[in-house]
Amino acid sequence: MTNVADIFARITPLDTAYEKLAQERQLQLTKPTGSLGRLEDIAIQMAGITRNVCPVIKHKAVVVMAADHGITAEGVSAYPSDVTAQMVQNFLVGGAAINALARQANAEVAIVDIGVATDIEHPDLISRKVRRGTANMAHGPAMSREEALQAITIGIDVLDTLAAKGLDLVATGEMGIGNTTPASAITSVLLNIPVARVTGRGTGLNDQQLTNKVQIIERAIAHNQPDASDPLDVLAKVGGLEIAGLVGIILGAAARRIPVVIDGFISGAAALVAYTLCPTVREYLFAGHVSVESGHRFILEKIGLEPLLDLHLRLGEGTGAVLTMHIIEGALHTHNEMATFGEAGVSNKE
Amino acid sequence: MTNVADIFARITPLDTAYEKLAQERQLQLTKPTGSLGRLEDIAIQMAGITRNVCPVIKHKAVVVMAADHGITAEGVSAYPSDVTAQMVQNFLVGGAAINALARQANAEVAIVDIGVATDIEHPDLISRKVRRGTANMAHGPAMSREEALQAITIGIDVLDTLAAKGLDLVATGEMGIGNTTPASAITSVLLNIPVARVTGRGTGLNDQQLTNKVQIIERAIAHNQPDASDPLDVLAKVGGLEIAGLVGIILGAAARRIPVVIDGFISGAAALVAYTLCPTVREYLFAGHVSVESGHRFILEKIGLEPLLDLHLRLGEGTGAVLTMHIIEGALHTHNEMATFGEAGVSNKE
Repeated sequence: MTNVADIFARITPLDTAYEKLAQERQLQLTKPTGSLGRLEDIAIQMAGITRNVCPVIKHKAVVVMAADHGITAEGVSAYPSDVTAQMVQNFLVGGAAINALARQANAEVAIVDIGVATDIEHPDLISRKVRRGTANMAHGPAMSREEALQAITIGIDVLDTLAAKGLDLVATGEMGIGNTTPASAITSVLLNIPVARVTGRGTGLNDQQLTNKVQIIERAIAHNQPDASDPLDVLAKVGGLEIAGLVGIILGAAARRIPVVIDGFISGAAALVAYTLCPTVREYLFAGHVSVESGHRFILEKIGLEPLLDLHLRLGEGTGAVLTMHIIEGALHTHNEMATFGEAGVSNKE
Repeated sequence: MTNVADIFARITPLDTAYEKLAQERQLQLTKPTGSLGRLEDIAIQMAGITRNVCPVIKHKAVVVMAADHGITAEGVSAYPSDVTAQMVQNFLVGGAAINALARQANAEVAIVDIGVATDIEHPDLISRKVRRGTANMAHGPAMSREEALQAITIGIDVLDTLAAKGLDLVATGEMGIGNTTPASAITSVLLNIPVARVTGRGTGLNDQQLTNKVQIIERAIAHNQPDASDPLDVLAKVGGLEIAGLVGIILGAAARRIPVVIDGFISGAAALVAYTLCPTVREYLFAGHVSVESGHRFILEKIGLEPLLDLHLRLGEGTGAVLTMHIIEGALHTHNEMATFGEAGVSNKE
């Protein structure tokens, strides 16, 4: 508990002095004021985060937290649980979508086993298994409060290790067959929205399977009675280990003034827990994209984030977040490299 | 005229056999079907364009066509006409937004003087001036039909020269103080929509200046009576030289089966003219983003293009199109590099 409680005090608002300097720089660049739209906002936010008028991104990483879910016994996913471990192997040999997109973006892929049901050994795997998957939350809490805190602490640790090597931008990613189910449960409880409105087809459920999934989530919430005013209680009772790990990544990054790109619905659920624990984290977040999963929009609206991409993605792994890194870098390339009106000898507005 | 008429016969539909093969490949990749959303559509379209199941992008370029506009005498722009030439100089020394974004995307910037009012000399400038800016279309046609055809032919030539060095993806860009005015005029006439609905603030007009701009465009259309059934007549009477040049870029690229990323409103007006001349060009186009300028959405809807980005950009130069190149490349990185279920030993959907 110490680690997690301590970190809130280290998460402080953006530095408005640097935001103001960045804004002034934007006004001098050779373009009509405001014409680069959201790229201008990104550059200003980055200046406030990093305390640098012209922030530079050298080191990027995506953290992919992997874990299994006991709730899959209830038939909530179109894929078997074994796929979690199989996909972790695929990540480790570079064959998944996140590997391809991370290579394109020149971002490191950090893969964390925080709760996969089977054992995986690989030199590149960060093995921090809290338990072999969550318990089936239809019949009791997914995990204990202590386990949830342990998973958050692991996230903070992983972030610290990456930061020690240099880290200027981090993306959240995850893999866990069944994990749209805890994401929907968390969203429903923390936002007080009926389960059906925040539950989608995940990897590809049909209508009947979707109805079943909604009922299973409703039953899990009714059975466990998570306390909506206590995000850790919600995370432990109806959450997931990879979601808890990503809460730690987000808190750890914000404490170190490192910007975070949030991926889709599962990452969004982690951001929602982190934001509920410590609202100031919002200032360190970029919403990579908006997922096809219906619950995601409610999360973004609550936190107050506007997604940068809308490409109908629903894969997870951090794919949408890593794709968004190009946009954030584009914002800084223009902000840092453009000539001013004075430098270029260009007339400003009449 | 020969060049332009000849090119239509060289623009043929996408190769559906390659689209089908790419679609089959998508179904085998280690992800739920459809979970990469629009990235999957992009990869399939690229296969159909290039006749390659796994298309590779090596050479990228953005063509920035620059020209002046006689209509600026009527006070339709917030910036003086001199800024066109000043910004061309800025492009040539690498200080503009498009330079920063093109360096990020590793795209060549080809700058074409197709009608700047003053003379510019620089070894990197492609000097193909048709005339020193258009005439003031409030009092007569912006240019002759022959000049419009000449500008289109120049665009085709520029594209051919770039293609000779290798070109796998091209973006359209432009610079021309006052050029939202001809873009609005073209859009209004070709789509039969009242001028006020397709006219925006450009680089930053106030309410009164916007009202004036609308009236000037209405007057120019009333005075010149462009024939809505003849896109070349519209382009000549109420268009611009850079817009005509981009029509040539688009036609030339489609004829060579090279995909084109369309930038904002001005590029969109060029795409609308090219599409009206030869509807098959649509299959070779990607809409980079949707501009803040109100007319742009009508153009995209008419051609049937869904923008890939919506970042509230309104700069032009090709900035939104070049930023979108990362998305298109991301689509191909996943399509080409991901393991299949069989290769990775991952179980497919139950």
